[in-house]
Order: sequence, then structure tokens, then C-alpha cells
Amino acid sequence: MITGKGQELYKKAKKLIPGGTMLLSKRPEMFLPEQWPSYYSKAKGCFLWDLDGKEYLDMSIMGIGTNILGYGHEKVDEAVRQVVDTGNMSTLNCPEEVALAERLVSLHPWADMVRFARSGGEANSIAIRIARAASGRDQVAICGYHGWHDWYLSANIGDGKNLDGHLLPGLNPLGVPKALSKTVLPFNYNQIEELREIVRNNPDLGAIKMEVSRNMGPAPGFLEEVRQIATDNNLVLIFDECTSGFRQTFGGLHKMYGVEPDIAMFGKALGNGYAITAIIGRKEVMEAAQKTFISSTFWTERIGPSAALATLDEMESLKSWEIITNNGLKIRKGWQELSDIYDLKINIVGLPAITAFGFDLADWLKYKTYITQEMLKEGILASNIIFSCVKHEPQHLDRYFNKLEPIFKTISQCEKGVQKVDDILEGPVCHSGFKRLN
Amino acid sequence: MITGKGQELYKKAKKLIPGGTMLLSKRPEMFLPEQWPSYYSKAKGCFLWDLDGKEYLDMSIMGIGTNILGYGHEKVDEAVRQVVDTGNMSTLNCPEEVALAERLVSLHPWADMVRFARSGGEANSIAIRIARAASGRDQVAICGYHGWHDWYLSANIGDGKNLDGHLLPGLNPLGVPKALSKTVLPFNYNQIEELREIVRNNPDLGAIKMEVSRNMGPAPGFLEEVRQIATDNNLVLIFDECTSGFRQTFGGLHKMYGVEPDIAMFGKALGNGYAITAIIGRKEVMEAAQKTFISSTFWTERIGPSAALATLDEMESLKSWEIITNNGLKIRKGWQELSDIYDLKINIVGLPAITAFGFDLADWLKYKTYITQEMLKEGILASNIIFSCVKHEPQHLDRYFNKLEPIFKTISQCEKGVQKVDDILEGPVCHSGFKRLN
Repeated sequence: MITGKGQELYKKAKKLIPGGTMLLSKRPEMFLPEQWPSYYSKAKGCFLWDLDGKEYLDMSIMGIGTNILGYGHEKVDEAVRQVVDTGNMSTLNCPEEVALAERLVSLHPWADMVRFARSGGEANSIAIRIARAASGRDQVAICGYHGWHDWYLSANIGDGKNLDGHLLPGLNPLGVPKALSKTVLPFNYNQIEELREIVRNNPDLGAIKMEVSRNMGPAPGFLEEVRQIATDNNLVLIFDECTSGFRQTFGGLHKMYGVEPDIAMFGKALGNGYAITAIIGRKEVMEAAQKTFISSTFWTERIGPSAALATLDEMESLKSWEIITNNGLKIRKGWQELSDIYDLKINIVGLPAITAFGFDLADWLKYKTYITQEMLKEGILASNIIFSCVKHEPQHLDRYFNKLEPIFKTISQCEKGVQKVDDILEGPVCHSGFKRLN
Repeated sequence: MITGKGQELYKKAKKLIPGGTMLLSKRPEMFLPEQWPSYYSKAKGCFLWDLDGKEYLDMSIMGIGTNILGYGHEKVDEAVRQVVDTGNMSTLNCPEEVALAERLVSLHPWADMVRFARSGGEANSIAIRIARAASGRDQVAICGYHGWHDWYLSANIGDGKNLDGHLLPGLNPLGVPKALSKTVLPFNYNQIEELREIVRNNPDLGAIKMEVSRNMGPAPGFLEEVRQIATDNNLVLIFDECTSGFRQTFGGLHKMYGVEPDIAMFGKALGNGYAITAIIGRKEVMEAAQKTFISSTFWTERIGPSAALATLDEMESLKSWEIITNNGLKIRKGWQELSDIYDLKINIVGLPAITAFGFDLADWLKYKTYITQEMLKEGILASNIIFSCVKHEPQHLDRYFNKLEPIFKTISQCEKGVQKVDDILEGPVCHSGFKRLN
């Protein structure tokens, strides 16, 4: 069993920080309980180093998708260093926020106005506030994962199962006011009739918020029908592109499908590892923001928009969405080939740039844990999902698949009864995570 | 009338960004409509430079209180540069967050556990979620300003006046679900009977959230009585120290009064201009965070906790709270002396380190605008409030008061009918802002 300074520090963290980390998806238990390196000292390209100075190739979540250009991209970091030299904050505003607003609107000609925040949860809450203020109605139909705030978790008040397919199974919305019950109404992706029924039965419905794509893409006509329903019923259509933005095209994924929302949000990748999120929208909707109160000190930071401007320049120059999509397609091919060789029935889901696999097997979580355990020994961070970055080159993919092959072979032998997975696991099984994989 | 590139850019911003800025308090209209420089190119110490390269001494909000150590503090910036060099974000967590949690708990021995966020609004929402989850009750009594989120603004559903004394007069909580009506119940500072009545009439009350000090400090026994009411009724007591923390002592202002809450939040000054906010609390309350879902990608950034650790080191070494409090006391003395000389009845409020003045005169907003207008000509950013920083030295205060004297004289002459304020204003009058001055 590998343990090091990281696991020592994590023991301390669990006493000081409820949950141990700030993000559920970065909990060591999600990967390899008691063995995951947990903390980093340095990250660069598609590599990182733990607290013991050990190097790892990151073939996992790449900062949960924040670093399409890889960790520590020179041009983005240079823009941030200039901000540090000239001041991140002042009594006056930073001009970069206006330039970034202009840039995002030019990439999305249907949009006219922009607000910025620092986290995806905030961007989601701002979009909902604006949509409710613009429509004058409180109910929202949702499809997908939209953060931790009250407005969203309220969907689970009552039976506690509404968000099972969107977030986590059985999530108890403890601490969310019960008065919010029935304000948020989930529908399943590609199930247009579920949305129609929500619209029919809820006259106070003012908005639809959804992810453009989930584990699967849209069925033919699905997004167009959602758009039509929104238009016909005077509902604000919001696309949450915090995760999907800039993965498959230069901007929101909705550009690929030719369906335009009234509001879209971007997060994660926009600043290549520096905190910045954006809410863009049509003027007639966005102007409702002025009739309510949406304001926060740290939304005025200069690092965020400066990093985003440099990130967009570099993405555009590299056509990064093509690189990471090609990487993802190669990765899928590799998984499929190994599964075919070892007679494992594999499910592969997600956008190519955020691709994940699973086996429909009773011992799946044990196998997933075993993959992480064995890859870690080889200096590779891996689970069953890969957020691709432009620094993932053919030699990294080769290294990953060379190490993955004997692991798939062992899993196959376990399934055939030749080996027992319990005998080869060196620690506890990982926790199950988000239902959404992309 | 002074105008420059900043006002040009702001005209563009108002078309692209609803409200023009991310923070209400940084809108140019709050200071000097059509003339305020609006944007900065550089900030250092207690100086900043606008887009035309013009230098200003900042005797105003100093980034709305984010920079107690001044803009661009070498040691804090050096810590941030190291983060840029070694990676702000990765699949693993940053060890600095554990060190910062440990540090904040050691400064506040009543607290055991910590969560971090990036903005003050988030910190407020996290504290409320935890308090509601821990108590199992949804209603909250509040006193003060606690951000832009639904939970707080819901206090204004109905008559629209509940937050008049806490935030802004007549704020319309447009876009806040009406179902939240009566979940948040405001009481006035130092009015213990109002709190008692809320407790008596609302069995679903689970928490009290308040600022420790507002424009005035606590009446003798007030905070102790609040603490007793919370204890007797099993209510989670939350002190919002986002603004007051580290201004008058090394940590929360509550340390000066010897009254301990169950949760406290810090913001603004904690990272000296880099985004980081903290929620600290007793173990039995904070552990409720694990029974609900509180998680966000950008809360895992390394810059925030790294900047905070360097900021705390430097604050402790300088005893910055003593420096800025002494500055504030000198500033008050200066205002009082000038008012006495020119026969103006002045009201001075707030913590010394965040001190503000006003005249009870019908033309007050015009005079405030005139002060900003004239000071701007002298290369000084000024309104009626000063967030002091350690870089404010005697020569800066002298310069400020030398320029302020003829302005107070003119105001006095306007009051005596010798001059007309409308004749000396060169542009529109500023907007009125927050009711809370500290």
C-alpha cells in the first residue's frame, strides 16, 4: 500500500474541514481511500507532483476540467503574473472585465450582455435570479447538475430522489428551506414529454435550465423542441455550459447544435485553472439584473478576466477543442479495443473531451478501485474518467494504455473466477460519485 | 469636468454588463457620475493609476476593504507568484487550505472546523446552510448586511422595507422565490427586545446571523444577551465578520467583546486583495455540512489560502489592526476639527479602520459629490468613507486634510448662502449607497 505525506495531511484535514476537501469530486475517497496522494506540491502540463515529490501523469479529472490547456500554461500564467505585478484589486474596476464581456458576446452573437462571478454555483444562482426576475415567475424546470445552492437542491425536498439521476443518488437536502418545495422540477434528458407535462401543470414556471448534453447527446430534434416550448410559453431558456463550454467548439456546445438559449453560463475551463465564471444572455433578459441586487466584492478581481482573455486567445490559436476531442476519441478507441480483447462489456459515455467508461458488473466499484490502485503504482492518476487537455500527447496515451492492458486482463480473470478482486485490493473500495459523468 | 479613457470604457461597459460593474459599491455613479476614473491600470500601496496613467492617492474604499496591507503587498504577492509558478489548480488538493484552517482555528479557540469559499455571498450562504442543517429549523433572525443571495433578500418579500436599515432602502427582491417569505426576520442593532420578540413568535427559528458592530458599537450587554438567547433557545449564533474581521484585533471583532458565536465568517481582508473567504465554527455545528451538499470547483484554488497565510503572517508581524485603527482615529480627529472650524455638524460612524462621516443637511449628497469632485482634481480618491490601510502614512493624511479644508470651507459657505452648491457641481450628483457604513 502506497501512503505518504498526502495521506497524513488528509487525516488532519478531516478533523479541521467537514468533508476534508472543498469539492466532493476531489475527495481522496472518490479515487483510492487511504492511498490517494490527496495533495499536490506542483502541477505542470499533464503532470503533477505530490507532497513527497513523486511525479504523476494525470489521466484523470485534470483539475475537474479546469485546465484544457494543461496545468501552468505559460501565456495564461504570464497574464496572471502581470496582474500580480500591477494589482489584482482596487477601488476602481478592471478594464479586462469589459474586454472579456465583449469577447464572449462576439463568440455568441445571440447574446448581448454578460455578468461574471467566481464559482459555477454562483453563476448558476445568478442565472436563476435573472430568469426569475425577467419572467416574474418562480418555478424552474431543470435537467442536469447545477451546483450546491438552495434553489437547486430544493428539488429533493420531499422524496429525496428527484436529483438521483442529475447529481447524487439519495441526496438529503438538509438545511435547504422546506418552503422551496416544488419550486424546481426535474425532467430527464431527451424526455421531451416530461418537460411538456411540467409546463402544462405549473403556471408559475418561468425558466428551463439544462445541460446541453449529458452522458449522451441530444436525440434528433430534442434541443429544438425545448427551445420551441420555451418560446411558446415565454420561458427563459438557460443552458448551463459550465462544464461543456469550449470542449467541442470555441464557445458553448449549443453552437454545434444551432439552438440558442436566452442565457448561457461558462465556468471551469474559461480561465484555465484560475477562477472565473460567466453568465451571458440576451439584453431583454439580462437587464432584469438591474432591478434586483446581484453584487459581490471578489467578482471584481482582475486575475479572473485576465486569465480568461489569455485562455481564449490560446484556445483559438491552438483550436484546443479539436485537439482534446481527438484525444478523447483515441481514448475511447483504446478502451473499446482493450475491452474487446479481454471480453469485457464496456459502456463509454460523455463528450469525447470528457469521456468515461464503466462495466455493468456487480464488482464495478472494486474494479474501478483496482484500476486506480495499479495505475498509481505506475505513476499515473486514473479512475474511469478522463478530462483531456492539449498537453496529452500520443506518448502519454500510449503509456496509459500500456499500463491499463494488464489491469483489464486481471479484471477479466476475476470475472472468469481465476482471481478474486478482493484478494488484489490493498485498501478500501472507492466511494461512488456523481451520476453525471460529463 | 475631468473625463478620460475610464469614462469612455464605462460607457461601453454599461451596454455590455447589466449595472456596468460586478459590485454595486464600485459603480462610478456611487462616487462621481460621468467623471470618476472608473478603471485602473495599476495599484500599489495606497496609490492607483487610471487608464490615462494618472496617479491617485486612495483615501476612499481601498478595494472595498480588501487591502489592509495596501495594494500589491510584496510578501503576499510573492506567495501568489509561487502559486502561479507551481500551479493554482490540479486534480489533487492544495495543502495550504489545511494550514489556513489550522491557523484560523488557532486564532479562534472556540472554533474547531473550517470551510472556505471565494466570495462573501458564498460564505454567508454556506453558514446559513450549515446552521439550518444543524438546527433542523429554517427561520433565521438577521441584523446587518449579508450578501446578495436569495436566503437574505427574501427578508424584503412583502413590504420591501425590511432591509432598509441593513442594505439599501426600498430594495425590490425581484427574482427571489416568494415561497421564502417570512423565513428571514430582521431585527435592529442594539434592540434586544426585537430579537426576543422574534424568538417568542417563531418556533421554526434555528439561527441568528448578525454583524458584531454596525455604524455604532454594541450597547453594554447587548452581544452577551444575544449569546444567551441563542444558547437558551438552541439557536446557532453566526457572526458575519466578512468586513469587521482583522480591522481592530487579530481575528474576529468578537474577540474584543469576549462573546463567542457558533459560526463566524471572514472575507474581504483575509487574502489582502486575493479572493478567499472562510467559515469557521464549532465541531458539533460544522459537522452538519457533511449531511448536506456544499461543494464547488473554484473553492479548491491554491491562490486564496496561500495569499491568506502570507497576509496573516504580515498582519501579525506589523500588528496591522493597531496601525489602521490609529489611522482611523487620526482621520476622525481631522474631520471633527475641520467641522468645528467651519461650523458644520458632523456625524462620524463605524469602526476606526472603516470610518465614515456625514452632515445632516438637505444638500448632503450634493456636498458629498462636491468633495469627490474637488479631491479628484487634486489626485485623491475620496468620498465620505475611508477604509484605512497600513500604507496610509502621516504625509498622506496631511495631504488629504490640506485638500479637504477648503472644500469644507466652501460647504460651510454654501450653507451660509454665500455660494450655491449647484453652481460649483460640474456634473450629476452621486447615487446614495449602502445604509451600512462599515
